Amino acid sequence: MDDSTFAASLAESQGSIERELEILLSLEPKPGELTRPRRLIEAMRYATLGGGKRLRPFLTVETARALGRTDNGAVRAGAAIECIHAYSLIHDDLPSMDDDDLRRGRPTTHRAFDEATAILAGDGLQALAFEILGDPETDSNAEVRVALCLGLARASGLVGMVGGQMLDIDAEQSTAPLTVDEIRRLQAMKTGALLKFSVDAGAILAGASAAACAALEVYGRAIGAAFQIADDILDVESDAATLGKRTGKDAGQNKGTLVGALGLEGARRELDRLVDEAISAVNATGVGAKGDILRATARFVAMRKT
Amino acid sequence: MDDSTFAASLAESQGSIERELEILLSLEPKPGELTRPRRLIEAMRYATLGGGKRLRPFLTVETARALGRTDNGAVRAGAAIECIHAYSLIHDDLPSMDDDDLRRGRPTTHRAFDEATAILAGDGLQALAFEILGDPETDSNAEVRVALCLGLARASGLVGMVGGQMLDIDAEQSTAPLTVDEIRRLQAMKTGALLKFSVDAGAILAGASAAACAALEVYGRAIGAAFQIADDILDVESDAATLGKRTGKDAGQNKGTLVGALGLEGARRELDRLVDEAISAVNATGVGAKGDILRATARFVAMRKT
Repeated sequence: MDDSTFAASLAESQGSIERELEILLSLEPKPGELTRPRRLIEAMRYATLGGGKRLRPFLTVETARALGRTDNGAVRAGAAIECIHAYSLIHDDLPSMDDDDLRRGRPTTHRAFDEATAILAGDGLQALAFEILGDPETDSNAEVRVALCLGLARASGLVGMVGGQMLDIDAEQSTAPLTVDEIRRLQAMKTGALLKFSVDAGAILAGASAAACAALEVYGRAIGAAFQIADDILDVESDAATLGKRTGKDAGQNKGTLVGALGLEGARRELDRLVDEAISAVNATGVGAKGDILRATARFVAMRKT
Repeated sequence: MDDSTFAASLAESQGSIERELEILLSLEPKPGELTRPRRLIEAMRYATLGGGKRLRPFLTVETARALGRTDNGAVRAGAAIECIHAYSLIHDDLPSMDDDDLRRGRPTTHRAFDEATAILAGDGLQALAFEILGDPETDSNAEVRVALCLGLARASGLVGMVGGQMLDIDAEQSTAPLTVDEIRRLQAMKTGALLKFSVDAGAILAGASAAACAALEVYGRAIGAAFQIADDILDVESDAATLGKRTGKDAGQNKGTLVGALGLEGARRELDRLVDEAISAVNATGVGAKGDILRATARFVAMRKT
């Protein structure tokens, strides 16, 4: 698949995710609701509709598509995962966490609104994610819906994303540098778990065979690890104007990154190995050419410039 | 049912919820987990195992029991709801929200740990709640589990608890006092929705008939409203030593309470009316004497001293 075909596919997916989030975060009250708190929804919209690569929902939609499912259920599940991702960014940017003023080239949510509103917008986005996955509109089969809820809870909770963020904060406050294994574990939790679940969600929605699920777990794990290494390389090599956020911040703090532990060349080699592993895993699913976008995504994750 | 029988029943329930939370928030790693971030779990344990009336899980367990279900599934669902309640207290107490130093007679979580850890502990508890409800150990039926996940997401999200907290903050910052209707709506969202869902969860777990569900919805809504009015009366009448938290704070801020809007006597009359409504609703479920604890709970909620 050439770059422009892939770029067009990603852009199309971004559009459908944006439209779905627009619907899910509508300011119009729905039947039976007491009220929609306007300022809260505006903050939730600000944090979710402000751009972004939409890589996680893309993985969900494209995994489901490769396995034969192409309806709006996968878009909804992807939007739910994007809500979790957006909530994590809001909370990570807070003054008591990373204290960032800039995200995707705009003021962070607590800067554009205020801290209390930002905390609540994050909390509300987490609840919304489970509401979307639990809703029969996402899938008529309760087994599928509850598997999505359970998988998201595990990926985003204390042994997943939230736990990884805690380990990251612990590491910054510690004087002892992390070992390579500790860095891998931290990253697998902080960013890897949700990226991996984005792939799992597509497999769950498409009712994938056990063999395909197992291969896609390898794919999702490799994508998650590759994404973080690419991120750490960008932090060293790019600049704030390109990324829309502060760069070089890893070096200034005791942030465990594989670039720091393995050197830039070592990190690049690991990245190449992960891309190969991801592509082999797609081959192992047996979806053939229908997996081309998943293969291209592995390359994109490693090569991205923002 | 006399007071001591009710008190014994509540105490027994508190014990089983504490034991379940102990298991759910164990520091021991489970198979397949990368690691359990110790400081995060300690903060989550601090916030959930530090006492409290455990009224929400009690409602879940006793509603299920009145309808004939007595296994550990209801205790687990109750523990999940308690996790949501605990997370909301952690976040509400934060400096950028209510800025409270004291909760249940102990330092608030961000005081005992730090702000970042408190935010993450709250986030992790929200995810854990959905993990518990989605787990087959809570119920073998996926329809039941996903109904619990969906109900909890709605009760705790932007048109429930989180939205109510936002409206409360908005009201404090506004110069115009809230109307009685606005106060009722705010309270139905902020505290009422989760209390009502605690009852709904018991009905879902017990596979209640549509008629029983409808009656229990009235019960849960009345309990939720009564709880908040009783809380507002306590804020005026009690002292910090008894409550284990700051009192009189509603009067100092533009906090909309029905005590303020209706006067103390008007609020008491409304409380009596809600207790009657709750008891009538239990009668309407047709559970007979098996509903005695639910009736006693309505009286307890109105009469409680802490």
